Amino acid sequence: MAVGRDLLGKNNHVVAVIGDGAMTAGMAYEAMNNAGYLDSNLIIILNNSKQVSLPTATVDGPAPPVGALSKALTKLHSSRGFRQLREAEKGITKHIGGQTHEIAAKFDSCVRGAAGGSEASLFEELGLYYIGPVDGHNIEDLVYVLNEVRSMPAPGPVLIHVKTEKGKGYAPAETAPDKMHGKYASTLWVLKFDPKSGKQMKNKSGTRSYTQYFAESLIAEAEEDDKIVGIHAAMGGGTGLNLFQKRFPDRCFDVGIAEQHAVTFAAGLACEFTLHFYREDSTRVLVLQVAHDVDIQKLPVRFAIERAGLVGADGPTHCGAFDTTFMACLPNMVLMAPSDEAELMNMVATAAAIDDRPSCFRYPRGNGVGSILPPNNKGTPLEIGKGRVLREGSGRVAILGYGTIVQSCMKAAEQLQMLGVSATVADARFCKPIDGELLRQLAREHEILITAEEGSIGGFSTHVSHFLCLNGLLDGKLKWRPMILPDRYIEHGSQNDQIKEAGLSSKHIAATVLSLLGQTRRAVRLLDFID
Amino acid sequence: MAVGRDLLGKNNHVVAVIGDGAMTAGMAYEAMNNAGYLDSNLIIILNNSKQVSLPTATVDGPAPPVGALSKALTKLHSSRGFRQLREAEKGITKHIGGQTHEIAAKFDSCVRGAAGGSEASLFEELGLYYIGPVDGHNIEDLVYVLNEVRSMPAPGPVLIHVKTEKGKGYAPAETAPDKMHGKYASTLWVLKFDPKSGKQMKNKSGTRSYTQYFAESLIAEAEEDDKIVGIHAAMGGGTGLNLFQKRFPDRCFDVGIAEQHAVTFAAGLACEFTLHFYREDSTRVLVLQVAHDVDIQKLPVRFAIERAGLVGADGPTHCGAFDTTFMACLPNMVLMAPSDEAELMNMVATAAAIDDRPSCFRYPRGNGVGSILPPNNKGTPLEIGKGRVLREGSGRVAILGYGTIVQSCMKAAEQLQMLGVSATVADARFCKPIDGELLRQLAREHEILITAEEGSIGGFSTHVSHFLCLNGLLDGKLKWRPMILPDRYIEHGSQNDQIKEAGLSSKHIAATVLSLLGQTRRAVRLLDFID
Repeated sequence: MAVGRDLLGKNNHVVAVIGDGAMTAGMAYEAMNNAGYLDSNLIIILNNSKQVSLPTATVDGPAPPVGALSKALTKLHSSRGFRQLREAEKGITKHIGGQTHEIAAKFDSCVRGAAGGSEASLFEELGLYYIGPVDGHNIEDLVYVLNEVRSMPAPGPVLIHVKTEKGKGYAPAETAPDKMHGKYASTLWVLKFDPKSGKQMKNKSGTRSYTQYFAESLIAEAEEDDKIVGIHAAMGGGTGLNLFQKRFPDRCFDVGIAEQHAVTFAAGLACEFTLHFYREDSTRVLVLQVAHDVDIQKLPVRFAIERAGLVGADGPTHCGAFDTTFMACLPNMVLMAPSDEAELMNMVATAAAIDDRPSCFRYPRGNGVGSILPPNNKGTPLEIGKGRVLREGSGRVAILGYGTIVQSCMKAAEQLQMLGVSATVADARFCKPIDGELLRQLAREHEILITAEEGSIGGFSTHVSHFLCLNGLLDGKLKWRPMILPDRYIEHGSQNDQIKEAGLSSKHIAATVLSLLGQTRRAVRLLDFID
Repeated sequence: MAVGRDLLGKNNHVVAVIGDGAMTAGMAYEAMNNAGYLDSNLIIILNNSKQVSLPTATVDGPAPPVGALSKALTKLHSSRGFRQLREAEKGITKHIGGQTHEIAAKFDSCVRGAAGGSEASLFEELGLYYIGPVDGHNIEDLVYVLNEVRSMPAPGPVLIHVKTEKGKGYAPAETAPDKMHGKYASTLWVLKFDPKSGKQMKNKSGTRSYTQYFAESLIAEAEEDDKIVGIHAAMGGGTGLNLFQKRFPDRCFDVGIAEQHAVTFAAGLACEFTLHFYREDSTRVLVLQVAHDVDIQKLPVRFAIERAGLVGADGPTHCGAFDTTFMACLPNMVLMAPSDEAELMNMVATAAAIDDRPSCFRYPRGNGVGSILPPNNKGTPLEIGKGRVLREGSGRVAILGYGTIVQSCMKAAEQLQMLGVSATVADARFCKPIDGELLRQLAREHEILITAEEGSIGGFSTHVSHFLCLNGLLDGKLKWRPMILPDRYIEHGSQNDQIKEAGLSSKHIAATVLSLLGQTRRAVRLLDFID
């Protein structure tokens, strides 16, 4: 934006705000390095809430920040405060960005001195003019500093280091820095809570989250195999790896918000070591790293892909639509998605057993369906590339689901049964390798084949269609319909509302079948029932 | 690897070698930050050949390195040499990584002193123990330093800064640092050259590369619109943007090897500014940045995707297989691929004209086919989402190509014609939005539809199949066959050999048609002719 302004000859101010959490991501470094080089006027506010990594929840409370940078910032914190700024007004001339600015020098004499000089040099070496630390809760100071910086005629890139406390002014939040704040800077998502006590409303569901089932079965695997290691990017709480960390403190690695590095870290570990799971958000699948550093080398890294599909209040930036598309085009990758929490546990065991190539499994945000769990939460490895038929129909219709949408496929079959339509339902389990035998059977024995997934174009349904057509199974009268996420971003909302908006509810599946059977009126009537 | 070693209780050394070019990538910073935090024993060798950015070729010779980091490293260069190391052997005790090492202190007194202290602090703040600079061409010194570092019992992460000269010892390479060296660290690809004179063999083709046609038409657009800006990541020579840079020095930005930042830099520019082209390697499509920072916000960034498809000697790490798959699942993206160089110029003009959403076009490595160029290299915007029929067949067969493979589709049609089979050939031009009218026409008027592209599963053919099936066009007897890159990495080789190995030559296309027509013997005979 600053470069655009300069090219247009405008003179507005451009302000970038970054948290200390985001500062661990390599992109921040790339941007600072470039800003220092370009030397455009630019104000960067580093909001340092003393958690260079996100407040990674452990079962014992928030974890200390990770990354060497946090130490440097901590040193800055311990230096003298900002109050002296206005006392010291010596006019030392300071050379910044090739220009001499007497106003800037005011800061130099006190603020930069206050920081102790050398600690600020990481930013200074990247060509930024460092100011701070400033108490972010002292509005008077803050406004003064911002005004001064704004009045500099050509300061080049300036970094103002502001220190704040998470939840400041609201006691329940101050004492629980790992909760009560938006999970991501980009989405203000917090659990519902009672404003007076600050107590968070507990989920009343009888089942726990898929995240937790994942963690429990990973622990069960790790009890038996001491080479299992967990890696996450500042998301111990969000990923359930806090439980793993508690049980195996030496075998769990939080690399900070540095997902690129996390993947290559896992790849390096795979060269030396046997088993490890890296877990990432569905949105954050980093294909360059995965392709170059893992897949080409066939390293057995296991990716646990969380928040796959629609994510409710996390919003469009975290919609897990693309992960299957991205991962499934990589030649050596094995892709799985569980239809329920027991299957998730089996897939954790399956991934642990796959040791000659990379694998991944995706599971949704939200709670399990109440399936019977394996003893001690330890799953059984599945046969690679084999799906299963859950319901044998006697009719013309087959529904093939991938992931937890299989539950909706089963419900759709029940709704259809009530209308006199019998449907086969199958659980694909694997997107890659795909179960050719199952596909042949479904295609040959039915006239209608629906594939359903909570994912974008290019994923499971694509792998089905390529198999079908390359084997001539689409040449005949088979009607194949892929039900996938629509080609648009779906806004914030409850997961249920989002599923309806995406047209992926059980009623949508049933209505699609009715419509293909020529029963359009019934299909419309069924959809009318969707509130 | 170092962490894996520690977990296994081994005591081998782990050495990471990184060039100064790669050091500008954020991932290097993420890794250093994590290494400093973990404090495992690890030797990092930074090979600084004085080009923090790759030697970006301009038409006047190599460009100076970009990025603020280059300045810091230059300062290190100008400090006193390493020879003093063995003279100074004072035993100052140095506290590193929580441990006291007298051996390490030897370095401290001279090497770190030689560097002037503060310049090394970027690495030191990230928790690395800095040693250097060491003359990389002085083998005696280098071996001494490496031996000393190896003998430290527990040094934690050590960074040895080695300075070298590109092409040292081979005069023709020393004087041309932008040529004669592998384009990428991972692939030793250089043009053929005469070892005596060092003169590079010129390509004898009558046409120029697609890269150059791209640059020329971009310049033609930019002559008429001063809001067109070029952005690249240390690839001015490789991208042809050197010509653009020469013509418009203020409107071309090299961000260094920092592709993530490049995308977001373009997004920021798009907020302020009107037009800009960002060009990236097909392998390096960075979906997280593109999705979050560009596509969700519908910012009109134009992506020129180079080296799409098979890339010959660039090798599997640079195979441009996945870009269409990644980009086409993003809801707001427009995707194009030209069938020849004139079309490329038209697509540059089209992208320039699309100002309400992001767009991209992919073009291959290698030379044009000799098509007639538009006057002054200035293309004409195409109608968005419209393909064209290039050859009207009278028979049952239609072949639909996306990208330069359209040339092979045309050849296949000629081969088929000689065998008495008439085929329609169409050029899709757009993958997204896809030309539904054209697809309907091809599907209704033919029995066989082949789609062909140099890309992985999930790309153009997937968008075709979804359209066809959602419109019931696959329910009948239409035989659709997608011809795409196979699901494996294709090793180094000439582009022609790779195309044959992938089964995407004109003869493969013709043979697929014959086989679908039931003329299996003829198909086999045709394929036998492939040498």
